[in-house]
Amino acid sequence: MLKIYLASKSPRRQELLTLMGLPYQLLLKDVDETYPDYLNPFEVASYISEIKAKAFNPQPDGIILTADTVVIIENEILGKPKDAKHAFEMLKKLSGKMHLVTTAFSVVHKAQIKTYSDTTEVYFKHLSDVQIINYVENFKPFDKAGAYGIQEWMGLVAIQKIVGSYTNVMGLPTEKLYAVLQEMEIL
Amino acid sequence: MLKIYLASKSPRRQELLTLMGLPYQLLLKDVDETYPDYLNPFEVASYISEIKAKAFNPQPDGIILTADTVVIIENEILGKPKDAKHAFEMLKKLSGKMHLVTTAFSVVHKAQIKTYSDTTEVYFKHLSDVQIINYVENFKPFDKAGAYGIQEWMGLVAIQKIVGSYTNVMGLPTEKLYAVLQEMEIL
Repeated sequence: MLKIYLASKSPRRQELLTLMGLPYQLLLKDVDETYPDYLNPFEVASYISEIKAKAFNPQPDGIILTADTVVIIENEILGKPKDAKHAFEMLKKLSGKMHLVTTAFSVVHKAQIKTYSDTTEVYFKHLSDVQIINYVENFKPFDKAGAYGIQEWMGLVAIQKIVGSYTNVMGLPTEKLYAVLQEMEIL
Repeated sequence: MLKIYLASKSPRRQELLTLMGLPYQLLLKDVDETYPDYLNPFEVASYISEIKAKAFNPQPDGIILTADTVVIIENEILGKPKDAKHAFEMLKKLSGKMHLVTTAFSVVHKAQIKTYSDTTEVYFKHLSDVQIINYVENFKPFDKAGAYGIQEWMGLVAIQKIVGSYTNVMGLPTEKLYAVLQEMEIL
């Protein structure tokens, strides 16, 4: 069986692979995640995931898995917030509205890179400024696209419904990934 | 502030309350959960949650929270499986189809009982017999309605999408509960 090299610092992605019963080895490298302005918001996660994939040499004994998650609201991309003020602004934007979360993942196998993506609709209820300020202060969501974790307080009290994959919002569309790995006969 | 007495043995409900930042005390009692045949499947969770609520004396210093979760497929209720064979049959039924998960919760405040419920659509992909057998053997889902946990292997690899609340499928519609407790001025 081929090894899985996970090229992601995200503790959520690491946790999800473990819950899927897939052992992995981490493969880390800093990659410049800037993307060109002309991209359609729905292409951005795939673009960044591929940039990450291209940053690694293929591994002879396994596949490399990279991923990227973005939040899209009113055709605008929200990445990770720079600081508390930025996180507040992002959550203020999400409050009372539906947004989309797109996660793309790439699988590097031999010299080939394949990229897949999934999108989930997330419906937020209206949040008060005090709720947002308290959440940012207590949870410091600076490593999360859109400044929230669906598995944290914010996700539990503010999300009225989702349409699509839950783990996709956490950062990895696990059902799709599993199907792809099965198709590639890695599982 | 009123205390919250949680009358549920479910470790998922206990975990969700904790993630919501709500301290609670457990209040446990065995309650007969049988329900009359004439009930509409969508009324069953509310009926059982209310039976549980009526089994306790109101607490002067707080509210009591009870809940019940059922899986509904093709107008049939799936509760907790009796044994491995029963769990296999349930998952075989869910395989490749959409089912509904309804969780009802009741809040006992002074002499008043109020019950609310939420329903989520869950779309399962097709599962092989081997996958079902392995899951039942490894995860022993005997304490779970419909014989699976959405937060476990089965939920990660088999659920293609949901429409509604994710925590509702886990056993407690957290966003709705939070809104109800705010309305009752308990938070």
